[in-house]
Amino acid sequence: MTVLDSFPALRTALADLPGSDASAAQAAADRNGQLTKPPGALGRLEELAQWYAGWRGDPRPTISAPQVLVFAGNHGVAAQGVSAFPAEVTVQMVANFRAGGAAINQLSDLAGARMDVHALSLETPTADFTQGPAMSEAEACAAFAAGWDAVDPGADLLVTGEMGIANTTSAAAIAAALLGGTGWAGRGTGIDDAGLARKEAAVAAGLAANPGRTGLEVLAALGGREIAAMAGAIAAARARRIPVILDGFICGAAALVLQAERSDVLDHCVAGHLSAEGAHRRMLDAMGKAPLLDLGLRLGEGSGAALAVQVLRGALVCHSGMATFAEAGVAEG
Amino acid sequence: MTVLDSFPALRTALADLPGSDASAAQAAADRNGQLTKPPGALGRLEELAQWYAGWRGDPRPTISAPQVLVFAGNHGVAAQGVSAFPAEVTVQMVANFRAGGAAINQLSDLAGARMDVHALSLETPTADFTQGPAMSEAEACAAFAAGWDAVDPGADLLVTGEMGIANTTSAAAIAAALLGGTGWAGRGTGIDDAGLARKEAAVAAGLAANPGRTGLEVLAALGGREIAAMAGAIAAARARRIPVILDGFICGAAALVLQAERSDVLDHCVAGHLSAEGAHRRMLDAMGKAPLLDLGLRLGEGSGAALAVQVLRGALVCHSGMATFAEAGVAEG
Repeated sequence: MTVLDSFPALRTALADLPGSDASAAQAAADRNGQLTKPPGALGRLEELAQWYAGWRGDPRPTISAPQVLVFAGNHGVAAQGVSAFPAEVTVQMVANFRAGGAAINQLSDLAGARMDVHALSLETPTADFTQGPAMSEAEACAAFAAGWDAVDPGADLLVTGEMGIANTTSAAAIAAALLGGTGWAGRGTGIDDAGLARKEAAVAAGLAANPGRTGLEVLAALGGREIAAMAGAIAAARARRIPVILDGFICGAAALVLQAERSDVLDHCVAGHLSAEGAHRRMLDAMGKAPLLDLGLRLGEGSGAALAVQVLRGALVCHSGMATFAEAGVAEG
Repeated sequence: MTVLDSFPALRTALADLPGSDASAAQAAADRNGQLTKPPGALGRLEELAQWYAGWRGDPRPTISAPQVLVFAGNHGVAAQGVSAFPAEVTVQMVANFRAGGAAINQLSDLAGARMDVHALSLETPTADFTQGPAMSEAEACAAFAAGWDAVDPGADLLVTGEMGIANTTSAAAIAAALLGGTGWAGRGTGIDDAGLARKEAAVAAGLAANPGRTGLEVLAALGGREIAAMAGAIAAARARRIPVILDGFICGAAALVLQAERSDVLDHCVAGHLSAEGAHRRMLDAMGKAPLLDLGLRLGEGSGAALAVQVLRGALVCHSGMATFAEAGVAEG
């Protein structure tokens, strides 16, 4: 039982996270060199297979139990007029997730993934962070723990997604606080110029109202419950050596919080896609992650990462299913 | 019965190819606007779904019968020392395809695709094009017709792939002849500097030995049977309104031949991926196609396109499976 009831407890849990299995990764690299293809001809698929093999401790792995976790939260900062959609859409979309009608339902089915939806205290939005902290330490820890506990210990791949009207504003504020600079606010679900200006102002006000924080304190001050839960789920996956495919801008903010606490904590993660949300590339650059897909998605829900499951699966079916030169009787050149 | 026994007959067949169904595409666009997501939030997936709907004449389509066609041919120009692998690897890899051991077998399975392998007169390589035409008109037409006839009329998506030691040299020569310029030769399966110089020299010699040709005459003079067959299959797919996902550099050369004959002939095709073969981007630019994937693959076989089937399928499961705002009771913002 991992106790996650305070920031010191969370930091202990993060410090305890295990690494990859170097011998399994090496065995996978050896196998890769024997497969019936020119060396390197499968490009990034070869790296992906070896990375996955290391985390799973299996030189010839397959994906059989992927999990998609979708967390929903409501944000006090929505009162600042920062979204193109009204706040009640969060709960409406949770109902849509449960009824199977959203994009992430279709993409989870395509990925053969179990999908779980966790609505986090939607009736109690976080506080408006332009006025002070969005969450107390206890609230942030509870949401982090909810994410941690939501991970299926039997999963062999995790995607974390989210829904929460105004949460690109929260993610932009987190990125600004952790990485500095300006221009983190973007169009989100499609806000107009006046709304974008309100969003930029809300980010600046959030930083001014919550100065001098880092890591988990930033998460509490500027985040939301779904963002804290994604951070918890990403960390829990690492604890169980479950590789993670990161989604877009909001998932990225959760990942950045973890990285601020421990620089190598995202080694079990790949970036599923480059979001059309303008500042996502800067965020990925800060993580040192190159996206698997670049298709202009900006939906959230885990959609881009769920689609990217198919790329990773492609890497693994080749790695684990192909014949070697010796098996096939093919000359090695 | 389509007669394809001369270049005039092939040109007649290309002129007769049908277009997309504009009303189905419009109905798909209307549906797209009602789905439970912000407008445009699925990025390129939205365009893909509408493009596919138009070609299939169905505003809410799914992919249920994809076909992967792999054509193999041997090349006289292999005698110029242009490949890192010996010519006997072509027939060895055909055996590997038939035994299920190659990358394309795994990726076809992942795509849920029927995969057919056609070995085209491997015992009779094309002539060395540095000395004169690689194929006669009759030989090129026979290979084109073999590709045409290989397409399953019941397929709803086509991937064309290839195997043929030295065929990146052939593809580079085709691109140079059709598009002009130099620098079309690349590393192929991984040739060294000296081999690359031989490859560049072979391309130049091929153009000098086969001057003043265009379109199908270029295909005969500088192509190979597997390249002609891919051109035939791409055209046959259009005849049946079957969308095509193009693979990399060699498939691209086949597509360029068709485009030289009729500028809009590739409207039913998308580019599956950007190959690591250096000149592939120039080729895609000439076709006006943006790749779906960019993962550094340079294997051929149809591998990149087969992986991209999953991206297209992702587009379609969202388009055809998602709930509308009205169905889900979600506010439209």
